[in-house]
Amino acid sequence: MTTVGILGATGYAGGELARLLYGHPNVRLTSVASAECIGERLGDFFPHLAPLDLTICDELDDVDVVMGALPHAVAAKLLLPWIDRGKFVIDLSADFRLKDVSEYERWYGVEHPRPKLLRQAVYGLPELHRREIVEARLVASPGCYPTGAILALAPAVAKGLIEKSVIVDSKSGASGAGRSPTVTTMLAEASEGISAYGLSGHRHMPEMAQELSLLAGEPCRVTFVPHLLPTARGILTTAYACLSEKGRSLGQQGVREAYQEFYHDEPFVRVAATPPQTKHVRGSNFCAVFPTVDERTDRLVVVSCIDNLVKGASGQAIQSMNLMLGLPETAGLEGLGLYP
Amino acid sequence: MTTVGILGATGYAGGELARLLYGHPNVRLTSVASAECIGERLGDFFPHLAPLDLTICDELDDVDVVMGALPHAVAAKLLLPWIDRGKFVIDLSADFRLKDVSEYERWYGVEHPRPKLLRQAVYGLPELHRREIVEARLVASPGCYPTGAILALAPAVAKGLIEKSVIVDSKSGASGAGRSPTVTTMLAEASEGISAYGLSGHRHMPEMAQELSLLAGEPCRVTFVPHLLPTARGILTTAYACLSEKGRSLGQQGVREAYQEFYHDEPFVRVAATPPQTKHVRGSNFCAVFPTVDERTDRLVVVSCIDNLVKGASGQAIQSMNLMLGLPETAGLEGLGLYP
Amino acid sequence: MTTVGILGATGYAGGELARLLYGHPNVRLTSVASAECIGERLGDFFPHLAPLDLTICDELDDVDVVMGALPHAVAAKLLLPWIDRGKFVIDLSADFRLKDVSEYERWYGVEHPRPKLLRQAVYGLPELHRREIVEARLVASPGCYPTGAILALAPAVAKGLIEKSVIVDSKSGASGAGRSPTVTTMLAEASEGISAYGLSGHRHMPEMAQELSLLAGEPCRVTFVPHLLPTARGILTTAYACLSEKGRSLGQQGVREAYQEFYHDEPFVRVAATPPQTKHVRGSNFCAVFPTVDERTDRLVVVSCIDNLVKGASGQAIQSMNLMLGLPETAGLEGLGLYP
Amino acid sequence: MTTVGILGATGYAGGELARLLYGHPNVRLTSVASAECIGERLGDFFPHLAPLDLTICDELDDVDVVMGALPHAVAAKLLLPWIDRGKFVIDLSADFRLKDVSEYERWYGVEHPRPKLLRQAVYGLPELHRREIVEARLVASPGCYPTGAILALAPAVAKGLIEKSVIVDSKSGASGAGRSPTVTTMLAEASEGISAYGLSGHRHMPEMAQELSLLAGEPCRVTFVPHLLPTARGILTTAYACLSEKGRSLGQQGVREAYQEFYHDEPFVRVAATPPQTKHVRGSNFCAVFPTVDERTDRLVVVSCIDNLVKGASGQAIQSMNLMLGLPETAGLEGLGLYP
Repeated sequence: MTTVGILGATGYAGGELARLLYGHPNVRLTSVASAECIGERLGDFFPHLAPLDLTICDELDDVDVVMGALPHAVAAKLLLPWIDRGKFVIDLSADFRLKDVSEYERWYGVEHPRPKLLRQAVYGLPELHRREIVEARLVASPGCYPTGAILALAPAVAKGLIEKSVIVDSKSGASGAGRSPTVTTMLAEASEGISAYGLSGHRHMPEMAQELSLLAGEPCRVTFVPHLLPTARGILTTAYACLSEKGRSLGQQGVREAYQEFYHDEPFVRVAATPPQTKHVRGSNFCAVFPTVDERTDRLVVVSCIDNLVKGASGQAIQSMNLMLGLPETAGLEGLGLYP
Repeated sequence: MTTVGILGATGYAGGELARLLYGHPNVRLTSVASAECIGERLGDFFPHLAPLDLTICDELDDVDVVMGALPHAVAAKLLLPWIDRGKFVIDLSADFRLKDVSEYERWYGVEHPRPKLLRQAVYGLPELHRREIVEARLVASPGCYPTGAILALAPAVAKGLIEKSVIVDSKSGASGAGRSPTVTTMLAEASEGISAYGLSGHRHMPEMAQELSLLAGEPCRVTFVPHLLPTARGILTTAYACLSEKGRSLGQQGVREAYQEFYHDEPFVRVAATPPQTKHVRGSNFCAVFPTVDERTDRLVVVSCIDNLVKGASGQAIQSMNLMLGLPETAGLEGLGLYP
Repeated sequence: MTTVGILGATGYAGGELARLLYGHPNVRLTSVASAECIGERLGDFFPHLAPLDLTICDELDDVDVVMGALPHAVAAKLLLPWIDRGKFVIDLSADFRLKDVSEYERWYGVEHPRPKLLRQAVYGLPELHRREIVEARLVASPGCYPTGAILALAPAVAKGLIEKSVIVDSKSGASGAGRSPTVTTMLAEASEGISAYGLSGHRHMPEMAQELSLLAGEPCRVTFVPHLLPTARGILTTAYACLSEKGRSLGQQGVREAYQEFYHDEPFVRVAATPPQTKHVRGSNFCAVFPTVDERTDRLVVVSCIDNLVKGASGQAIQSMNLMLGLPETAGLEGLGLYP
Repeated sequence: MTTVGILGATGYAGGELARLLYGHPNVRLTSVASAECIGERLGDFFPHLAPLDLTICDELDDVDVVMGALPHAVAAKLLLPWIDRGKFVIDLSADFRLKDVSEYERWYGVEHPRPKLLRQAVYGLPELHRREIVEARLVASPGCYPTGAILALAPAVAKGLIEKSVIVDSKSGASGAGRSPTVTTMLAEASEGISAYGLSGHRHMPEMAQELSLLAGEPCRVTFVPHLLPTARGILTTAYACLSEKGRSLGQQGVREAYQEFYHDEPFVRVAATPPQTKHVRGSNFCAVFPTVDERTDRLVVVSCIDNLVKGASGQAIQSMNLMLGLPETAGLEGLGLYP
């Protein structure tokens, strides 16, 4: 059986990879590494993973697939040896997502250790890059916010229904900020309220712009405002754009049909019948999309919901892994949303 | 001492009026009425109001000021006699907010019982209509969403910094939906997640359009999307608009100064130094506004925070009452936000 | 393949049964019935169940196993025909839990339609009644609070470590109150706080007393106080009892070992290494138990955590079903807790 | 006007003192000190305090009253000079609460810098020590958990209604853990669930035992289990005790009347008509107490609710200050609970 290892198993994405891989029928998680708690059982560190019989090591054993759930910069550094050995590598960090190395270095403030890999890495959003993922050895799994935003807008962009300057207003649960404690993400501070952040520019914006521009065949500009929700999980994105003449002529019903057509064969994206709630997809790899037209202002308004740790991170990485390994795309990812 | 009565004391706005009036130094709450729980002590109905020695009646005693905290349509009907008797009347419902009776009847689906009062009623947002409120006998206190949206955009509209088609993305705590139980607002359903609603049109939109158009001197169109937060209180509004040439020339710093100038003398609006959280103003009558410029897309992005039950309802109504009665505008409203 | 039907598919327990059965490898959910929304697709009613292709009917098709997820009294009435036809029946209501019909009629205020079935029905807690469940045709699946309380105390009672008067202080998420909207369980009311209820007696107490007395071989009295948590799911129970002489002599370490021994072969109960949080088991069928001794006061203090809708309801019912059908006990229930 | 200073203004208790003192009619907050953010405006540090025009200093100006909102050990050290200068000192830490220096040193693991002050310091629970507070120069303001627990049990202990071994099961919002970030109190970890902690002994237990023993005139033993709630504020305590013969003879109604009598003249304790919720007292200095009798088990069960930062910390400290200064006891503390 194919073996999988996780680098960075003590973060939220790492823990979620372990949770999902535990139930995967075709691969086996055999090794977990982290810079902290070395020698501890993973199930003591994360009690919800108690049934897994794995010990946290400082280095991975030899495995067929390496999942990197590390901070940017650290990720590239620790994954390079595995890439060089020709292993299947899926990086959940930002290190291989941006094609333009100068954009990477500008937004992340570090020098890239191997810029030529940026062209080789495939952006791991199966809904846009399935064929390339199937052929890939190195997949850059998308950021959580870009996943929600791109899936909300891709049909409209691909079909020319909107103008190429969009607004992405996203609301995310606190697990998106990771497991390192800060005052801002303490329960006493962040509960019972909401705040906007990243107003002077957030690192996930260039990812959205890159992919939407690629899809449009011309530059697409993005105003992106993330908000911190008082929940553990979930991202709801409300995306706004001016309708093109084609979009206006389609109207509400036509736009909805265009979305249904675009996502017709997708196993994990559904065009929702009613406005979705993040909890509808919590714990699952689904993305619910709800497109509407505001005829008073000729705007497209699309709501999308994902679980930031599943479709926005670990589930999507496993979806790419399945494609890379020639497994059924949905293997290990059939779990439904945990509602209520 | 001036006496005040509340019609609709068993709803959230009614309860909040009672909480705030309890600490008001210049007026006295002497009578509370409701259609339910008649004969019960208000402090048994709402245990947080236990120190108030008032019994819920089916009709108000004679009072100097009548606060209407009733559903629309019911409000107008029950307030008309008090208006006709020349009392100070502040209506927290939508019945006297829209100047155009056809807009009212279209959005609320009922016939207006006294359309000519619509011109006479003053829209009770002191930051825009202070002088008229001072002279008024009938004030239509603004809706919660419009309060947050208009305060976010008023300086930009008044000073011509933006184009006249705006996007208002609002996130509200569940108390905004009132105290009547529905499946949607149950804790098990609405907690740990977020959802958008009103996507086919929300009644608070025409209020925003009316006031922003009035301020602009030309029609202002509004795309408005409200969201249900898993909190009891608070509205955070993120407003987006394309900068006008003047707005672009001002840039981030100039726009911020324009906002500071506009709100310079306002006792309850502050231009925040950092992106505000709803909890910063929870329980208080303050509105925190944070304007920014997205220079990549030439958009204005403004975040505002209010407590939907205070500045978005009962506190603002008391602010108007203070103006109508010639009292200090801040009387009874000095309480600070309850943080954390 | 064995077919399963759900009576009461539009409540929380019904929805959770559907979620879990969707991933069950050995049985197939083929029919769902409810008194509401007949003709609607289950996946439209509960959007998280969208992948299930089932329509809500007013009656079940012929199936091998009937799961009753109905209110008490209604449950017995609708299940009797299926019992009489010799089907496998698992009732998640209280109708067949209490052996003493007078206790049932006193606490539930209704006459029992078939008292003689009370002796025949097996109390579906596999940790105490596995052998009988294997033989059963009618299982009364335990209440959520009793599951958490009994699992917290069973080893101590069975081994004579405590005196036979116990205190059960339980804290439950709001889904335990069901899906019918009430003021008390609205988000605006129940969020950001906690309250105790049922102080004059709660229906789940006699269930605890019955099972603990049976285990003790003598009457066991229970003080039970439930609390409403501002979460959707989860029950944490803190149980207190005076140590017997045997319990005192064992001390902290000995008591812990007694618990480990008692639950050694249980697939779904684990003696936790550190105090558990409800989220460690959220969405899973696990129960985490943490026994401690307060040597200053010679008391046993045990904390247990379950998901009220899984081990406290639908998961446990499936666990019983697996035993009744001779399937692996853990089939369809291997999913880990959704953390964070 | 009497001047007040806060040592430790950047913690939650410090911020809450500032919030409450801002509205106090008889004293003036003139100086705030902290070890962090020196030179910053308090209203920039805590945006909800924006209207206060105070700058954080490393030392206090000369003031009449010093409020210590510091961690234990640090508190005593920094307050000693002010005590020696004869100022009114109210310490919100544990440094002067325990009369027995060996208990202090055992539970807090530090040597006490001035043990003889322990006898001189008055335990600042006005409901038990009002007369001594009036005469005091040094008040040790009670811990949050002890406040809720002692007020729940004091009438029963004082009147001999219960046996002298009690159980205190408390549930607290996360602000009780202070403002220093830890993994445990991050929103992603602590939200949507509950956990018990301190099971091997919590520092607030000896405080409860000291005060209840003093009241009983004999040793009173306490089993105390705190729990972490997914809320910012609030403590609900459920206290259990075996009824004495006297208690049993009184029964439910008699016990309730005993509580009403005990708290008859107390401005901040009310015997609630229905089981209280923490939000009923949120932001206020009130304590709601609800005593019941479980006649099946002859136990007293009492529920109490406080806001841990107000009656459990800063409000209670101001209440003591009012008594020390000869002001009306309720000055600055009349604010009602923020509900919902």
